[in-house]
Amino acid sequence: MGQTRRGFIRMAAGLGAAASAAPLLELGRRLGAEEPAPRKLGFALVGLGKLAGEQIAPAFKNSRLCRLAGLVSGHPDKARQWAQQYGVAEKNIYDYQTFDRIKDNPDVDVVYVVLPNSMHAEYTVRAAKAGKHVLCEKPMAISVKECDDMIAACQAANRKLAIGYRLHFEPYNLEMMRLAREKVFGAVKLIEASAGFRIGDPTQWRLNKALSGGGSLMDIGIYALQAARYISGAEPVAVSAEATVTDPVKFKGADESILFHLKFPDGILATCTSSYATGLSRYWAGAEQGWFELSPALYYHGIHGRVSAQDGPKDMQFPDIDQFAAEMDDFADCILKGRASKVAGEEGRRDLKIMMAIYEAAATGKTITL
Amino acid sequence: MGQTRRGFIRMAAGLGAAASAAPLLELGRRLGAEEPAPRKLGFALVGLGKLAGEQIAPAFKNSRLCRLAGLVSGHPDKARQWAQQYGVAEKNIYDYQTFDRIKDNPDVDVVYVVLPNSMHAEYTVRAAKAGKHVLCEKPMAISVKECDDMIAACQAANRKLAIGYRLHFEPYNLEMMRLAREKVFGAVKLIEASAGFRIGDPTQWRLNKALSGGGSLMDIGIYALQAARYISGAEPVAVSAEATVTDPVKFKGADESILFHLKFPDGILATCTSSYATGLSRYWAGAEQGWFELSPALYYHGIHGRVSAQDGPKDMQFPDIDQFAAEMDDFADCILKGRASKVAGEEGRRDLKIMMAIYEAAATGKTITL
Repeated sequence: MGQTRRGFIRMAAGLGAAASAAPLLELGRRLGAEEPAPRKLGFALVGLGKLAGEQIAPAFKNSRLCRLAGLVSGHPDKARQWAQQYGVAEKNIYDYQTFDRIKDNPDVDVVYVVLPNSMHAEYTVRAAKAGKHVLCEKPMAISVKECDDMIAACQAANRKLAIGYRLHFEPYNLEMMRLAREKVFGAVKLIEASAGFRIGDPTQWRLNKALSGGGSLMDIGIYALQAARYISGAEPVAVSAEATVTDPVKFKGADESILFHLKFPDGILATCTSSYATGLSRYWAGAEQGWFELSPALYYHGIHGRVSAQDGPKDMQFPDIDQFAAEMDDFADCILKGRASKVAGEEGRRDLKIMMAIYEAAATGKTITL
Repeated sequence: MGQTRRGFIRMAAGLGAAASAAPLLELGRRLGAEEPAPRKLGFALVGLGKLAGEQIAPAFKNSRLCRLAGLVSGHPDKARQWAQQYGVAEKNIYDYQTFDRIKDNPDVDVVYVVLPNSMHAEYTVRAAKAGKHVLCEKPMAISVKECDDMIAACQAANRKLAIGYRLHFEPYNLEMMRLAREKVFGAVKLIEASAGFRIGDPTQWRLNKALSGGGSLMDIGIYALQAARYISGAEPVAVSAEATVTDPVKFKGADESILFHLKFPDGILATCTSSYATGLSRYWAGAEQGWFELSPALYYHGIHGRVSAQDGPKDMQFPDIDQFAAEMDDFADCILKGRASKVAGEEGRRDLKIMMAIYEAAATGKTITL
């Protein structure tokens, strides 16, 4: 049994054979191999819009470590209806005025900010000051300065901060990262990443630059930027960009479509498309001996991946997971184990810095060095 | 019978019901409806390399209007072997010194130039001076000035000139043009076009800038440029570009990969990838109500197309044709009917002008207005 158990722990932890038994057993305990399921962390959702309603709230039922414990909304009726639907105690409902009292609520460990972009910074800072860990939807904020404030507030409160980059926990996207990192087809030479959808209602906050901080790039193009970064495994050193508006009635200030080029070290280039004019969902990497691709790449479900092969492309085969449950569970695991999140505030800040450079490149027609 | 026949002719010519019978019958004669198969035009191939050997020479057997009648090569043994294989008379073999005597050979109507890019202009001009029509492989030449000389020489000799843009005659590519032109999914908003392959032998002429006039862009990226132009149905007004070299040993002067953005009227943008570092073959158009795509887009065979639909993408269904036979037959038809080619010298010149701007944009980091 000893050998078998050690084998299991080794496998679970990805450790080599040289490790001694004592720390392995300790690790086994930490991994929960012998303990009952850990206490689920209580999450409060701030902002009960479409994403929260259709994706995030239903994801708790698929979560191992998280439960929906609080609701923050400007609409009391909606909050009460959600509370009933998801079994949240009425006392755990807040509005934007009463939000700071969440400090005194031990049911809530984490605040998940799902507000319009321009409100991310304020509610992240207020949540940290209330002693809560913060998971904040992407984009992290609408300026680098706001990102700095958010990181500082969470550090000062000794609370964790992560950004809702769900694809960092999605098996197909993880496979793209692995294929590149392990050079399965040789070194990656070029990346193409495209993300877009045709936006509807012209009155929505996404098209109001004061609330969105931009347009398609901040909302959906950020996925293409993320993909270029996590597939290359590197940080861009320069960007150039071209923006366009074909519907000036709908797009007053917010960007409609932006094409951008990212230059990475070692001469790797990425070409990215961001659009509110048409649907796009594809990540592609071309390497020395082949290519690998996701298309669709960034949907909540139904991601499809292919890799090149001598006798024609082969489908990737991975489970279709609940991405929001995976994202929340990872954050909960970071909190429970005191480990760093791979999508911490610093990661969100990197994207903001690059997106601001993309906007500058598009506005000036110049290549911007990062 | 009269009505039926008129119906047939009308269908074949795509004419409306208002046309009178006399010109229709005349047109019927011109279309060959009552005549025996027209005389096949004699083609002389100049340059017996891989493309000529693997694609063009074998295509004559699938051609309705063309026959292989002459060979021009610096390798007498190779030319004799081809002559035997394809039934070409020994007297119709030329080398680069004797080439101009082709003027006196009535077996040859058309010279098909399949030489390295830097030799296109010289052999097109010499062929025109010898009184022959000229089909010239892409890229038309290595400078706009050469294109002008080629066009002028063919005009002075009253001979036709066309460029080997085979995809203008390929059903899937024609369908992409139609879907855009007829706004089947609404107006096209964005185009993505990528063409590339991993180049082998570092000693080949394609990597010698003096012979190729560039690198991947002139050879394979030109397909992406073409696609952006024929799918948009418009001419770009500005270009920006980013070039990279990851293998400076192989790429000394010739470009390895170039990403370029094309700005079209009405705010339509195209993003194109050209590469000798990795395989790429995809054209995609995003429109208001959907998208349409070829992938692979530019292979000699096996092109695959899809269009978006409510319940998931649908495959296009078109025959897999001999693209070189179609291209040569169209040129022969232009000669026989005295009609203009849609891939005349002027079309090749447009690409050269844009490619020179792309190289300038990549070198300077500036957007170049066309």
